[in-house]
Amino acid sequence: MRFSSGERSLQTLARIAEKLEARLEGDGNHEIARLGTIQSAESDALTFLANPRYRGYLEKTRAGAVLCTEDQASFSPVPVLIVKDPYLAYARISHDFDVRPQLAPGVHPSAVVDASVSVPETVHIGPNVVIESGVTLGDGCILMAGCYVGVGCELGKSVRLWPHVTLYHGVRLGDRCNVHASTVIGADGFGFAFAGDGWERVAQVGGVAIGDDVDIGAGTTIDRGAVDDTRIGDGVIIDNQVQVAHNVVIGNHTALAGKVGIAGSAKIGSFCMIGGAVGISGHIEICDKVQLLGMTLVTGNITEPGTYASANPMDKAASWRKNAVRFRHLDDIYHRLRRLEDREN
Amino acid sequence: MRFSSGERSLQTLARIAEKLEARLEGDGNHEIARLGTIQSAESDALTFLANPRYRGYLEKTRAGAVLCTEDQASFSPVPVLIVKDPYLAYARISHDFDVRPQLAPGVHPSAVVDASVSVPETVHIGPNVVIESGVTLGDGCILMAGCYVGVGCELGKSVRLWPHVTLYHGVRLGDRCNVHASTVIGADGFGFAFAGDGWERVAQVGGVAIGDDVDIGAGTTIDRGAVDDTRIGDGVIIDNQVQVAHNVVIGNHTALAGKVGIAGSAKIGSFCMIGGAVGISGHIEICDKVQLLGMTLVTGNITEPGTYASANPMDKAASWRKNAVRFRHLDDIYHRLRRLEDREN
Amino acid sequence: MRFSSGERSLQTLARIAEKLEARLEGDGNHEIARLGTIQSAESDALTFLANPRYRGYLEKTRAGAVLCTEDQASFSPVPVLIVKDPYLAYARISHDFDVRPQLAPGVHPSAVVDASVSVPETVHIGPNVVIESGVTLGDGCILMAGCYVGVGCELGKSVRLWPHVTLYHGVRLGDRCNVHASTVIGADGFGFAFAGDGWERVAQVGGVAIGDDVDIGAGTTIDRGAVDDTRIGDGVIIDNQVQVAHNVVIGNHTALAGKVGIAGSAKIGSFCMIGGAVGISGHIEICDKVQLLGMTLVTGNITEPGTYASANPMDKAASWRKNAVRFRHLDDIYHRLRRLEDREN
Repeated sequence: MRFSSGERSLQTLARIAEKLEARLEGDGNHEIARLGTIQSAESDALTFLANPRYRGYLEKTRAGAVLCTEDQASFSPVPVLIVKDPYLAYARISHDFDVRPQLAPGVHPSAVVDASVSVPETVHIGPNVVIESGVTLGDGCILMAGCYVGVGCELGKSVRLWPHVTLYHGVRLGDRCNVHASTVIGADGFGFAFAGDGWERVAQVGGVAIGDDVDIGAGTTIDRGAVDDTRIGDGVIIDNQVQVAHNVVIGNHTALAGKVGIAGSAKIGSFCMIGGAVGISGHIEICDKVQLLGMTLVTGNITEPGTYASANPMDKAASWRKNAVRFRHLDDIYHRLRRLEDREN
Repeated sequence: MRFSSGERSLQTLARIAEKLEARLEGDGNHEIARLGTIQSAESDALTFLANPRYRGYLEKTRAGAVLCTEDQASFSPVPVLIVKDPYLAYARISHDFDVRPQLAPGVHPSAVVDASVSVPETVHIGPNVVIESGVTLGDGCILMAGCYVGVGCELGKSVRLWPHVTLYHGVRLGDRCNVHASTVIGADGFGFAFAGDGWERVAQVGGVAIGDDVDIGAGTTIDRGAVDDTRIGDGVIIDNQVQVAHNVVIGNHTALAGKVGIAGSAKIGSFCMIGGAVGISGHIEICDKVQLLGMTLVTGNITEPGTYASANPMDKAASWRKNAVRFRHLDDIYHRLRRLEDREN
Repeated sequence: MRFSSGERSLQTLARIAEKLEARLEGDGNHEIARLGTIQSAESDALTFLANPRYRGYLEKTRAGAVLCTEDQASFSPVPVLIVKDPYLAYARISHDFDVRPQLAPGVHPSAVVDASVSVPETVHIGPNVVIESGVTLGDGCILMAGCYVGVGCELGKSVRLWPHVTLYHGVRLGDRCNVHASTVIGADGFGFAFAGDGWERVAQVGGVAIGDDVDIGAGTTIDRGAVDDTRIGDGVIIDNQVQVAHNVVIGNHTALAGKVGIAGSAKIGSFCMIGGAVGISGHIEICDKVQLLGMTLVTGNITEPGTYASANPMDKAASWRKNAVRFRHLDDIYHRLRRLEDREN
């Protein structure tokens, strides 16, 4: 048995069209059971065409229906649901066919919940979850197996923690936050004073304040503030293995791809898109609507929206070696070039 | 007491020679109790010489025996086991002297195993392990403390999960896979549609399909597919803190060093060697037998086997600063150089 | 209710001055309840001025007292505690006002502690902790929820493990080590021999030896040695998501910022400062007192103390593209420049 979508729900195309305010061309009674790709979907699956370059696939698709724009509809051999933004429409309907486990409310007997904590009836607490004193939980929260919620944490409504998430003391998560496995929020910031013969740790007494609708990947770490809080805005999306240091501030709806690292007290604007493995130095500011390409290193403020980059282009190692060694001569090359120019004039 | 190998087994040199099809020069009754380095091994330890540059150590070794090639044997003051590939022979015999805990079959009473799951008698389930419904476990699996195995996962024979591994719903692992602590397989891919005023999450309904004999380090994350599966081939070896995004495909026997990041839908061939902290962009293809040096950024297809690189050479910060600033003038330098050449001709 | 410091202790300025050997100017009976920033601290909070650039904030602060140097004291409108190094003094007193949970000695009933382990009365063992056979625990250790301590581990006095830490078999931690959540110490090093048609795993029989006063962040991985131990010196501080491969040696009081990756058998000196996301190749040596700027790639030995770097400067993507493409012409540019110079002379 292939593990896939479809066991969950059956919906007619008419019903899907209604939900998405899409114009249906085809049989409204046809039933959709799962999601598919345009190449491999069968007649019980819904798919989408977002990139016109895939029109060749559209012309041959055997899907039950295709979400597409008006101008692509005529190329489809199967029913179409016409919308302005097919990928966004697909995103919205996709949850009806999700395969993630649906977890009933209730507290597993192996969970260790402090007596001071009031657990709403709509909340699911999985096996081996530990909840310390003074924690507040909103309606509909789902805390999966082995999560740890430290003293005084505040979780909004419908927060989902996947297994083995650690929330240190004093972490606040807004409504509908989704945190993937083994992510750690609220560990001590990397604050040490140099004492001549070694390092002296500085107590990190700030918390972490995370807005509503924040999505956080697996294996990510978000440190608590040194004194004030580390702050993540509403609707921020964070991928796996991202490191957010103490007192970082991230504006609303900014996206951080996998393996981004942000050093202490950096301030990032809203609607930014930070590419994979980007590094951002401490104490700098990045304005709204900045896009950083993968592996860019940011060491100074960015005050103008736009796209930025810093990585080298890849090459075969043999020629890369010859060129890379000249990097150390760049300033010399520049001055020798100027000297030649000066002589000539 | 130093924690080390040797408590486990005693083997004569004759027995080791037989297992490795090695030619023994020395006393076949001498007993080996542990593994050692060529510098520090004592008479109860087996060691190897793979790199001829270490011959000086060979000449002075006090090991119980040395695995080496024919042409090095005469330099050894102690018994030798002559083989073609000493490091490979060492690898094969090393498991006889491993110090990892040997865990007896059985289910710890604190484990929470869904009633639908049939646990073979040869399987070890450690404390606080959680196994959800519909999971299948092959003979000889070892699930150490605190692992979480989601709905419908399929584990082949002799799979080992070290503590705190998380397998989301619908993850499949082939025979003899070895997954280190706190690794997360099957978390949602980073799939979001932009809705003008924010991000809309896209349900990730694909699974993760991992072949036989795959070795995965600690703190690694491998995301589930958006629709189709994320796929890892047979014999792939993956180090710590590697990020594999949704719908990545990795060919058989490819090696990924620590901290590699691979973006969504990238396709990597077989027998590749991906160096530490390499970044690979989404939706690109890398052919078989490609080697990438550490920290290389790959943003386009690689269609030819060979070695590739992109990082800058390191320098003292003072001269690095002078040169790095000229990077921004490179195109200008190039054009000024061409102008001088043109004038001259 | 904001989660913050202050519930824990009240101290008079006179008492704080005494502890820090500071000279107090102001009312010794004034009571401090918490820590604050110089901008936002109120009269019950202690703050500090380390950077003279913030003197403007000092002149307007409403803190209960300010730790500062002699020459700044006259600018403060509130009591001052005069010390030579305000940040160091702040570090030392900060723990009196920490907000981290204080955990009473005792073993939680859900913990699974092997019968062979002697737990001192001063030790705290949280829920779902698993301790295997042959483990030794020093006085005052704190093992928070869900930690796993493998066979034969040795923990010194007052070691603190935050939730979900995994210690594999044979890991040794010195006195007062502090290890944050989901960190994994002692997983197998990435050791494989190539067997022509695939990889053969090499048993990793070394341990991990960590000195006294080592601080390790969240989501970090430190691999066990192949034969000898991986070794971390006294007073080393390690941030989040750092990867330390097998047989790495790190000297005393070296600092590793977030996302650093160190490949196998690299040897790093004492009092080094390794910047964020730095990559260090295997089998190289770095001497004492080396500072590496963020994202530097080190592929050869460093034999001279000082500061080193390698990353490219960031630029707008449009001009970056034009310049980056010329990187592949650098050697060509160099030779064409030399030709022009030669002709001229």
